[in-house]
Amino acid sequence: MSIVVVGSMAFDTVKTPYGEVENALGGAATYFSLAGSYFCPVRVVAVIGDDFGDEHLELLQRHGVDTAGIERVEGPSFRWGGEYSLNLNERTTLFTELNVFEGFNPKLSPELRQSPFVFLANIDPELQMSVLKQVDNRELVACDTMNFWIEGKLDQLHALLDDIDVLVINDDEARQLAGTYNLVEAAKRIHQMGPTVLVIKRGEHGVLAFFQDEMFHAPGYPLKSVADPTGAGDTFAGGFFGYLAKHGEHGPGAIRRAVVVGSVMASFCVEKFSVDGLVDLDQREISMRYRAFQRLTDFGEF
Amino acid sequence: MSIVVVGSMAFDTVKTPYGEVENALGGAATYFSLAGSYFCPVRVVAVIGDDFGDEHLELLQRHGVDTAGIERVEGPSFRWGGEYSLNLNERTTLFTELNVFEGFNPKLSPELRQSPFVFLANIDPELQMSVLKQVDNRELVACDTMNFWIEGKLDQLHALLDDIDVLVINDDEARQLAGTYNLVEAAKRIHQMGPTVLVIKRGEHGVLAFFQDEMFHAPGYPLKSVADPTGAGDTFAGGFFGYLAKHGEHGPGAIRRAVVVGSVMASFCVEKFSVDGLVDLDQREISMRYRAFQRLTDFGEF
Repeated sequence: MSIVVVGSMAFDTVKTPYGEVENALGGAATYFSLAGSYFCPVRVVAVIGDDFGDEHLELLQRHGVDTAGIERVEGPSFRWGGEYSLNLNERTTLFTELNVFEGFNPKLSPELRQSPFVFLANIDPELQMSVLKQVDNRELVACDTMNFWIEGKLDQLHALLDDIDVLVINDDEARQLAGTYNLVEAAKRIHQMGPTVLVIKRGEHGVLAFFQDEMFHAPGYPLKSVADPTGAGDTFAGGFFGYLAKHGEHGPGAIRRAVVVGSVMASFCVEKFSVDGLVDLDQREISMRYRAFQRLTDFGEF
Repeated sequence: MSIVVVGSMAFDTVKTPYGEVENALGGAATYFSLAGSYFCPVRVVAVIGDDFGDEHLELLQRHGVDTAGIERVEGPSFRWGGEYSLNLNERTTLFTELNVFEGFNPKLSPELRQSPFVFLANIDPELQMSVLKQVDNRELVACDTMNFWIEGKLDQLHALLDDIDVLVINDDEARQLAGTYNLVEAAKRIHQMGPTVLVIKRGEHGVLAFFQDEMFHAPGYPLKSVADPTGAGDTFAGGFFGYLAKHGEHGPGAIRRAVVVGSVMASFCVEKFSVDGLVDLDQREISMRYRAFQRLTDFGEF
């Protein structure tokens, strides 16, 4: 089945202890699409400026991503700049220039409205809701959000959460949204807000998922070198949701495997700068990394 | 097979956001012994003061722990006081009174020298080495250490590491000892120092073990409530080493299961203050928690 993803496409300027890039391809929808493209057809809804080169669209198209929903408007694209600490666990935002993204008002074509799997990346919850209302044939709807919306548009976010199936956020966001530090208690409260599946991203410490009275944990893969954590969360979401859409199911077993697939894709993402770790992977590399996760976590009977 | 553990027995005064205890039973050897006692005979070598009540020794004995190697001397016992942050991830030491522990010079009886499994809890590496030299029948020797010795007695620590099999430390200690932030690289460097098995404790984020070119990860169990993290690392070590000693093996499969068993015991430890979470557990509770770890981490084929 195909996925529609709505979110940002951007140029990122990133500095880590291991190097730096300037105006490199980035944005949640970009990372999501590339990661998801290895599992199912992905259609992107986004806005870009007139500075957005065709080579970036061609990169997506080469991965089978449908770019017809990307609107190009006059003006510069969304730009973000950030710098990571020595241990890569903290980052400082140096600048955020919304530019053409400020006027983003996503409209789905009749074809896109029929996509059964819908991922609403981190944008204003009012826009996320407006997209959701355009969807005609939903089977599974997931969203991401961030502290900015939890603080500034909580009512609108609650209205959205009440209407979606899967929430994918990081641990601090889950704690803030639920108003409690304990993640088990936070999950219980967030389930009551609407989402039946809650996926909590914990950076290098992996992912914790809560669904149908079950918990599942996947670690971050211990890598020999990490270049740039930017986009790891969106990449996770693309692999996770792509796997579910590929198999057209979202029962407990599929959720568990999808969390590992998302973690696999995130582990490729952080090994290089920008989207370089997600370009031209082959299925053999992906299934080998999946098996590496199996070896990493496998233990037998008591 | 039996274990000899050498380490501290103490009284802890601990404050967490969920309560506080004053002069409660603590110390690395205490937590280790109680956790290990569920799997194999444990013999403790430690020093206590004349303020150390018989009820504490009886508690250990009730768990089958051999307390003959505990030396009682005049003066007050080791006391430690600490306070945890709201998220339990940071702790401030309020006081450390070594007291009788300052003159600790462990001597093993002829019987204790024959124990094939030896755990050297966190004490001066010169004392750890002096114990190791007394051991006659070693099959597996493990040790813990801390930043204080990495900074102050590095040469003596290196001499010890060269002669032990298993090192159990936390992530910051591993980074400091190896001089690198990346844990995969740190593990490589630490293997070169001597230990063939490296077990890195990461608090609520679980445990990462490196052995025979393999990696294994076990998560911290997501608990509904955590009362007091004190002793979790020593409890982990007791369960981990106890499982290995019980089965008399330390191949890759046993290491993996032992890491999970250690994590199981640590999860009981943190649910209550002091050693209360480790007292009078039954085997059914332990195997149920082990199965809960299986459910938490289980996923199938790609």
